[in-house]
Amino acid sequence: MTTMEMLQAVATGERSAREVCEQALTTVAATEPRINAFTDITAARARAEADAVDARRARGEPLPPLAGLPYAVKNLFDVQGLTTLAGSKINQGQPAAAQDAVLVQRLQAAGAVLIGALNMDEYAYGFTTENTHHGATRNPHDPTRIAGGSSGGSGAAVAARQVPLALGSDTNGSIRVPASLCGVWGLKPTFGRLSRRGSYPFVHSLDHLGPLADSVEGLALAYDAMQGPDDLDPGCQATRVQAATPALAQGVAGLRIGLLGGYFSAHAGPAARAAAALAAHTLGAQDEVDWPDAALGRAAAFILTASEGGSLHLDNLRRRPQDFEPLSVDRFLSGALQPADWTLRAQRFRRGYRDRVNALFQDWDVLIAPATPIGAPAVGTEWIEVNGTTHPCRPAMGLLTQPISFAGCPVVAAPLWPADNGGLPLGVQLIAAPWHEHLCLRAARALQEAGVARLEP
Amino acid sequence: MTTMEMLQAVATGERSAREVCEQALTTVAATEPRINAFTDITAARARAEADAVDARRARGEPLPPLAGLPYAVKNLFDVQGLTTLAGSKINQGQPAAAQDAVLVQRLQAAGAVLIGALNMDEYAYGFTTENTHHGATRNPHDPTRIAGGSSGGSGAAVAARQVPLALGSDTNGSIRVPASLCGVWGLKPTFGRLSRRGSYPFVHSLDHLGPLADSVEGLALAYDAMQGPDDLDPGCQATRVQAATPALAQGVAGLRIGLLGGYFSAHAGPAARAAAALAAHTLGAQDEVDWPDAALGRAAAFILTASEGGSLHLDNLRRRPQDFEPLSVDRFLSGALQPADWTLRAQRFRRGYRDRVNALFQDWDVLIAPATPIGAPAVGTEWIEVNGTTHPCRPAMGLLTQPISFAGCPVVAAPLWPADNGGLPLGVQLIAAPWHEHLCLRAARALQEAGVARLEP
Repeated sequence: MTTMEMLQAVATGERSAREVCEQALTTVAATEPRINAFTDITAARARAEADAVDARRARGEPLPPLAGLPYAVKNLFDVQGLTTLAGSKINQGQPAAAQDAVLVQRLQAAGAVLIGALNMDEYAYGFTTENTHHGATRNPHDPTRIAGGSSGGSGAAVAARQVPLALGSDTNGSIRVPASLCGVWGLKPTFGRLSRRGSYPFVHSLDHLGPLADSVEGLALAYDAMQGPDDLDPGCQATRVQAATPALAQGVAGLRIGLLGGYFSAHAGPAARAAAALAAHTLGAQDEVDWPDAALGRAAAFILTASEGGSLHLDNLRRRPQDFEPLSVDRFLSGALQPADWTLRAQRFRRGYRDRVNALFQDWDVLIAPATPIGAPAVGTEWIEVNGTTHPCRPAMGLLTQPISFAGCPVVAAPLWPADNGGLPLGVQLIAAPWHEHLCLRAARALQEAGVARLEP
Repeated sequence: MTTMEMLQAVATGERSAREVCEQALTTVAATEPRINAFTDITAARARAEADAVDARRARGEPLPPLAGLPYAVKNLFDVQGLTTLAGSKINQGQPAAAQDAVLVQRLQAAGAVLIGALNMDEYAYGFTTENTHHGATRNPHDPTRIAGGSSGGSGAAVAARQVPLALGSDTNGSIRVPASLCGVWGLKPTFGRLSRRGSYPFVHSLDHLGPLADSVEGLALAYDAMQGPDDLDPGCQATRVQAATPALAQGVAGLRIGLLGGYFSAHAGPAARAAAALAAHTLGAQDEVDWPDAALGRAAAFILTASEGGSLHLDNLRRRPQDFEPLSVDRFLSGALQPADWTLRAQRFRRGYRDRVNALFQDWDVLIAPATPIGAPAVGTEWIEVNGTTHPCRPAMGLLTQPISFAGCPVVAAPLWPADNGGLPLGVQLIAAPWHEHLCLRAARALQEAGVARLEP
């Protein structure tokens, strides 16, 4: 069942929330040996939350918008009673969280049912979820391949139909990359839109939280349930709720939609270019658009990521480097050793970069780009080739996402299935100006309605 | 004549603006050999601006608020036709500024008459204005002593009665230190209050611009003339003018005024403590208040100063270090070599620090502290002793100002004349919550009315 079918079934009483919950727990148990998306299953909590929904229905109370919907969260979200691993071995020594992250609180208030916590790259530093401590998460469409990362558990859990909704985080592409490789919907909201309180940080100046879902409607409903100001999170700049779900019905007529060329074509393989071209054709986009300074934006994003990430973990990097993820500890160490000048130049560059990107949206409502250069590579892949250039695989999966998030723009990743991609999905990014999520979602809905973006081949 | 006397004389026609201007030019010429406050005299412009004021009066037009008032600006402000030296030798190779800095434009619009550009520490990195390229600016009360810095020319020019008003900049104390040592009034507004467009930067995240003046009224009038939004300066966060001059008449009855103790007493010599105690007594302040984490705030301010300053000048530091000020080039070089981790930790610390400082102002309207640990030392002093601890002289002059500006609070420096200070002035800081300049100015006016803060011994 899809999100909307589950919500409908619970709302009408055709299925109890408890039945839906048990089905999810059964599916998780059956598929985990193959997928390895979860690091914790919160079965007791899930049943209690489901029963609470059923009790409300039994009392004749109105049900909240996500009543009975199972979901799971990347294990960097605080969940009361669980230690917030953030993909690490080091955090295993920490006490359990005393309360839920704000977004988990809001989903609970909306009636959603928490099934568990999901695997990720250690401390969110990676695009592959090849987690040495907890094992690699596998791509549900081909378990020899990666799920993408760092929210790989989130992408795989939705793609494997374990849960219809998952939360992830995206610093440089960590929602959009697994959405692309697993073939699910993902939303990276505007930087500063959603509260990050109660989540484990990676890069304060770049971290975003957001949903991955089985449908545009599910994405929008979850996003709307999580929106709103949080006075206790100084990073949350939202001043009010701007509901996106009502905008879905508006279609794309009248929107000025373009296809990003230049850097976004040069760093996209044939399948990625085909996916973007199909989305552009479907949405009536005819013009190719240049994104300003995309390569510099990616470089600056990497510099801030490495230095802020390295700084955050410096004490442990000094004391116990052997306990870090071997696939990313070198990047943390080199980041911690960067000169302040690099970081400050990247910060200065970013101010002008955002202005130049914002100016672009005077002419465009939605811009399209591939989400990843290629489809999911095999687990363990060290090098990939994109249009004749060899790249290190793990960082290169973010080639097309980093320049976008560095400007703070909201993006929906839509699951396409281009030809010549081995029967695997490959997503496209639908990008709008900051604080205009509804435009991304309207374009996403059009791709879903046309049938070109979907969860199955 | 004081500011108010000059404005009155021009307004009534008792003196023409041209006469006031010629008097200022004559005084500058007579005193410069002793003071060395100016690096450029803009006599032709001054006469043209004065004549324009007189022409308005002759036509019976209403005069703007600063009509005919002579002033000068630290040479980091752009002045059309002058090269913006920022105290350096390196900038001498740059073309002349094509237009005035925004604050100069606003003072011109208010009828003020620009007499020239003022000496400073190179690139604003210093508290002494011992400028090797342009010579040290001398303290008008004792020319063997420093004027303070980095806006030393601004403090000395007002103290020597060359001009009743000067503009300076303050990153860590560069308005308040020369105001203290020269015995003039200074205002460091809230961080982000005044446009910085058209001024040479030092530390983007800490730079403020502001006035030094011969009276509280002059300070407030100049501040009000310069206030207001500037959409073209992304660092200017002002959304409207909040005129301070009308508040001057309100007095201090009802204000909750405290005296900072702890760090601000430990790092103040006997004369500085006496000055603060006298201000506290005059304003009826009875309680001693603890400023949170003052020493850490100063350390973090120094880290950001060194790294941002070093980053800004890195190319020239690499290519031509011999052309920098020998008294500060080592600090620039070491700043450029700092690890990113230090800078990022200082940035993170600052966020919480501002919150803790803001919380303090739930209980207090104005807080008092000395502006400098001691009165003006002799030119060339390398070491000073404060309460038994030896400090390097040049950075130590900012011991008491840095923690305040790092929190972004507005401060008026008021000129006091404590006993046992060799007949020299020593200022106190009157500190309020961000965006509450009017409270600092009301307290300043009370000290002026009581006669304890004044321009002469």
